[in-house]
Amino acid sequence: MGIRGSLRIMEKNKVKRGFGSDNNAGVHPDILKELISSNSGHVIGYGSDVYTEQAINIFKEQFGSSTETFFVFTGTAANVLGLSGIMKSWNSVITASTAHLEGDECGAPEKFIGCKVLVVDTPDGKITPELIEKHMHGFDFEHHSQPKVISITQATEMGTVYTVSEISTIASFSHERGMLLHMDGARIANAAVSLNLPFKAFTTDAGVDILSFGGTKNGMMCGESICFLKPGLSDDFKYIRKQGMQLASKMRFISAQYLGYFRNDLWKRCAANSNAMARMLADHLNLIPEVKVTQKVQSNGVFVMMPAEIAEKMREHYFFYPWDEKKSEYRLMASWDTAEKDIVDFIALLKKELSPLSR
Amino acid sequence: MGIRGSLRIMEKNKVKRGFGSDNNAGVHPDILKELISSNSGHVIGYGSDVYTEQAINIFKEQFGSSTETFFVFTGTAANVLGLSGIMKSWNSVITASTAHLEGDECGAPEKFIGCKVLVVDTPDGKITPELIEKHMHGFDFEHHSQPKVISITQATEMGTVYTVSEISTIASFSHERGMLLHMDGARIANAAVSLNLPFKAFTTDAGVDILSFGGTKNGMMCGESICFLKPGLSDDFKYIRKQGMQLASKMRFISAQYLGYFRNDLWKRCAANSNAMARMLADHLNLIPEVKVTQKVQSNGVFVMMPAEIAEKMREHYFFYPWDEKKSEYRLMASWDTAEKDIVDFIALLKKELSPLSR
Amino acid sequence: MGIRGSLRIMEKNKVKRGFGSDNNAGVHPDILKELISSNSGHVIGYGSDVYTEQAINIFKEQFGSSTETFFVFTGTAANVLGLSGIMKSWNSVITASTAHLEGDECGAPEKFIGCKVLVVDTPDGKITPELIEKHMHGFDFEHHSQPKVISITQATEMGTVYTVSEISTIASFSHERGMLLHMDGARIANAAVSLNLPFKAFTTDAGVDILSFGGTKNGMMCGESICFLKPGLSDDFKYIRKQGMQLASKMRFISAQYLGYFRNDLWKRCAANSNAMARMLADHLNLIPEVKVTQKVQSNGVFVMMPAEIAEKMREHYFFYPWDEKKSEYRLMASWDTAEKDIVDFIALLKKELSPLSR
Amino acid sequence: MGIRGSLRIMEKNKVKRGFGSDNNAGVHPDILKELISSNSGHVIGYGSDVYTEQAINIFKEQFGSSTETFFVFTGTAANVLGLSGIMKSWNSVITASTAHLEGDECGAPEKFIGCKVLVVDTPDGKITPELIEKHMHGFDFEHHSQPKVISITQATEMGTVYTVSEISTIASFSHERGMLLHMDGARIANAAVSLNLPFKAFTTDAGVDILSFGGTKNGMMCGESICFLKPGLSDDFKYIRKQGMQLASKMRFISAQYLGYFRNDLWKRCAANSNAMARMLADHLNLIPEVKVTQKVQSNGVFVMMPAEIAEKMREHYFFYPWDEKKSEYRLMASWDTAEKDIVDFIALLKKELSPLSR
Repeated sequence: MGIRGSLRIMEKNKVKRGFGSDNNAGVHPDILKELISSNSGHVIGYGSDVYTEQAINIFKEQFGSSTETFFVFTGTAANVLGLSGIMKSWNSVITASTAHLEGDECGAPEKFIGCKVLVVDTPDGKITPELIEKHMHGFDFEHHSQPKVISITQATEMGTVYTVSEISTIASFSHERGMLLHMDGARIANAAVSLNLPFKAFTTDAGVDILSFGGTKNGMMCGESICFLKPGLSDDFKYIRKQGMQLASKMRFISAQYLGYFRNDLWKRCAANSNAMARMLADHLNLIPEVKVTQKVQSNGVFVMMPAEIAEKMREHYFFYPWDEKKSEYRLMASWDTAEKDIVDFIALLKKELSPLSR
Repeated sequence: MGIRGSLRIMEKNKVKRGFGSDNNAGVHPDILKELISSNSGHVIGYGSDVYTEQAINIFKEQFGSSTETFFVFTGTAANVLGLSGIMKSWNSVITASTAHLEGDECGAPEKFIGCKVLVVDTPDGKITPELIEKHMHGFDFEHHSQPKVISITQATEMGTVYTVSEISTIASFSHERGMLLHMDGARIANAAVSLNLPFKAFTTDAGVDILSFGGTKNGMMCGESICFLKPGLSDDFKYIRKQGMQLASKMRFISAQYLGYFRNDLWKRCAANSNAMARMLADHLNLIPEVKVTQKVQSNGVFVMMPAEIAEKMREHYFFYPWDEKKSEYRLMASWDTAEKDIVDFIALLKKELSPLSR
Repeated sequence: MGIRGSLRIMEKNKVKRGFGSDNNAGVHPDILKELISSNSGHVIGYGSDVYTEQAINIFKEQFGSSTETFFVFTGTAANVLGLSGIMKSWNSVITASTAHLEGDECGAPEKFIGCKVLVVDTPDGKITPELIEKHMHGFDFEHHSQPKVISITQATEMGTVYTVSEISTIASFSHERGMLLHMDGARIANAAVSLNLPFKAFTTDAGVDILSFGGTKNGMMCGESICFLKPGLSDDFKYIRKQGMQLASKMRFISAQYLGYFRNDLWKRCAANSNAMARMLADHLNLIPEVKVTQKVQSNGVFVMMPAEIAEKMREHYFFYPWDEKKSEYRLMASWDTAEKDIVDFIALLKKELSPLSR
Repeated sequence: MGIRGSLRIMEKNKVKRGFGSDNNAGVHPDILKELISSNSGHVIGYGSDVYTEQAINIFKEQFGSSTETFFVFTGTAANVLGLSGIMKSWNSVITASTAHLEGDECGAPEKFIGCKVLVVDTPDGKITPELIEKHMHGFDFEHHSQPKVISITQATEMGTVYTVSEISTIASFSHERGMLLHMDGARIANAAVSLNLPFKAFTTDAGVDILSFGGTKNGMMCGESICFLKPGLSDDFKYIRKQGMQLASKMRFISAQYLGYFRNDLWKRCAANSNAMARMLADHLNLIPEVKVTQKVQSNGVFVMMPAEIAEKMREHYFFYPWDEKKSEYRLMASWDTAEKDIVDFIALLKKELSPLSR
């Protein structure tokens, strides 16, 4: 049963909580409070307001004083417009075949930038210089699109997390070839918690040049950031954002979300919960002989193979996506609001569904 | 003094209320309440949720049962992606030279659609078949981009409002030539109040084919709609929206805003206030000999010529934009939250500033 | 009767010579000879050949030693790819409403560059700083596409020719605003003959930054050049040409045409003939009371108003285009191969057709 | 030594004949004769001429009466514009990783169409349904670009040739999924000779929907064709070609080349020679123990591994490209004008260079 069929079943059954995606959760109440408190009086639109000024300064604190930050609405826009700022149409960006940039943006990089996206197959979502090497040719040869950016996802789409050393190595590899390093940080908070490091340690300090900083998957309502971590990259970006249809008129309401997100490290508490819940879920699953966790659980995603008929039964109660139907592999995502009870109940039902098989 | 300088003065003086734009106002409290009440449990992302289903159905009620509605984040996106659904790159869209599509999207239609935007000069923001006629040539001739869409703004950027008859006439003119009629409805609520008509009467029933329905300028936080009013136009649009970087992951929070917007005709109350305040402002201005209202006040905008040095003094207290610096013409916009006191105070200050001149 | 109908009549009548366009003429025999003599042995493709090297050097001689020249196939490509080298998608180019860039490229600049084309109405095809001024606003304001290039056509589509002084004035105007000056030189040879000046005098020396240098309308087979007249503009252009689908594999056969074009000033002889024939045609027309030459005849085009029914009769024998059907205005183009007999015969037939009217 | 270095050596040594590419050869004399004979009188530009009409009819004879043919200048344009006619920006085209579409167009498909190019690794340049299968997912899911076209190259970039049965199988696979089959026929003449079949047998009759028909690599000067083999695909294509900057003003000179190309089966004689010379070259190479022919020789290309230092010495006398420097693999292309003496001399020199090694 495909995704559409699954959705229909979920809707029919009024399923309310699940492991479909971290964006199926709502907004953290502290973010809503910040929206309410910023809703006072008039401010100039399109970013010339104090909330935006404050939010931009927080990013300078978190990522270094050279950081230039621009807010947009979606992760797709953060990735595509950010790359648009540092690529020409005749450049290519190299990324993992599992990256959102390749498989989940419906061709938005190609449409908006006009560039090539070159992919690298990788077992765990992480790419390495060795894997990238195959695309390192054709430089200065005009028949060939010119490699310009390497893009890594942190945490990856497979739930794994790059170490600082791995990132630094790719950064050096990029810079030695006149290329830049982009990080898709849709789940960067989960990575920071996993690494137990401040954001700067594995981005700016590790050589990342440009970052898509996500918030929506970790308790925000909408709003992603493009952070130019090196000086001189963002001079014309305001035009790119506007022409890219992503300049918010009432921008204070994106900025205010970020104020709430960073206040008292809300982001850390949210990500710590989803990471811990994924860990707990994986630990329980590992005890069940009929299922197999297929990737290291380093952030808030758990990939698991289980018998397809059992998975379909579970999906009548809990929404989650098939990842690789041929291998009967599924993805379970924990959210900022996933509770221990959600795990316990899920595991109990899974065991119950599996019991006729094990007899 | 240009816009940037003006912004700096405003920020320095901590101006809190003004007539800069209807998007300088915040969010109506009822919209915020709706956001809070929809923030419960998990729902599937990207629009497969009950809030979105309900919101889409409201648009069918308002515009007719064939209406297919898609939510995006910005007015630019509503205009550009909507047109992208009905144009090819070798088509042209014809619009007023004052239209947002021409002057305020930083070339987004050209970038995303690849099309030509052909303009018509018009004294009051309204275009007519007679004015459009000059672009009606080159059909079937491949050297010439093929006219495909006429786009009107309702209410116009000049604060004027098309009558039903004027719209029907342009619709017939379009359809007779195999063309379609697009309406940029960033301020459609103000037009509906001005005409004292339901939305459907001057859109679907008047022959409009596709509509950008705005909410942000009238009390919403973010969220615009693309409404395909005729069947068969929207089949592939889901791909266009996603590739256009405008598919909201937590879409329920756009949809919920629309639920609040239509509940108890909130939109009508908001627009009625801003229209009435603009009317009141214009009435006061008309009594002052040194200033001159230059456009009919049919919605929430007032265009006025006043001595430049007076305008600059006023702008130290109230943010508003110069419209045509050569003519010393300014634009004053009323909002859903503009109060009578705002008008009274503004007029009082204006008279005070003018008094040395009139002596 | 539209263009298609006219074409059908022409084909039916097997018309062989006319005044339709300078590209209706064939190839000058000297160009063909050059093609034949370059067709010897193997040379490396895509421009790494001695013919291309020589042709590029000729352009350095003609336009100055900093000139970087790239060959493409069509005038549309020369204009669009050349501009693509110096514009971003959020820039605009300003040109006459009669310019090819606006009306005859089917939206190619918008499609390939993603930019806006802003137009200036002009009675004679020539634009001036005064006319351009209306687009000089919105600088640094991201809602507005940023003016970057002014494009003039030399000779203009109306057959007129800019003086050196007029060009210098527009160049200064451009450069003072951080903008660049582009010249569409599809008929630059006709302008050079008209001005009786070397190419360099009214291009590089007059402040032109980038030039589309045409040859096809003046006796070549195919092949247009993009000449970057100032250093530093063309660094990445080889990628733009290739991605723009205009890199010739057997480039020697474009280059060889240029060798023939410049050998013994062939270009000058061709253009001198077409200019002289246009002059002769206009002189004859001016003696006929029922017709009226509407533009100065400074190159090889003659614009003339004549009774529509007479024009249609003439078009059964001579192919030429209506220019403005409402005014009954027609365009007659002379070619490198137009002969005095063509003029004499045309005028004789015209007088014969007119005679019943004048009785 | 990279390509640029190699080119410099070749130029220095005034190498006149080699195996660099079939486009390093010149134009067949019969094509030049046809150019000369068509250079008579005036014809209407942009394709409304008798030469173009005749050439288009020849394609109907060769490929079936429904065939709609459009001429462009380059193979890149034939591929990209052709696909542009049958794809939307949110579609993907699937092709071999060795295909020109992927590696040799500098990202032109992405730039012009905005689409994704998905690749399949293949040992011999030929793709199969089994290999393509991995991209057959995400249909109807808007996050994923929608597969729409499968593109095969005939003969492939590796010198191999698809059988009719192989093509039919891919065509059925495509059509069953609502997709279309494109053939890049830059070397289609070589394939036809190799298969000993008329063009129609392995294109239209085998289920190919759209074809890029090349001529430049087989003795023409410039000029490629886009052939829509099924009705209803080409309705708007004239606009795509013009906006794609590929509408020839003096189109008769492309069309005339095709008249010469098909007259007395010139194409067949040219391709038969290059195929036979490649065969002869491979046969000789197969007798030399130190070298290894790595691909089946089914058209005019020979892929061979040889010691790198020997290859470099040979490249001082004969221009040819390294294919895979890591494997010391080179590509040798025969042309319509390759003579037996070229082969004999090359082999003799190779043996001489190799002799010190074999002692």
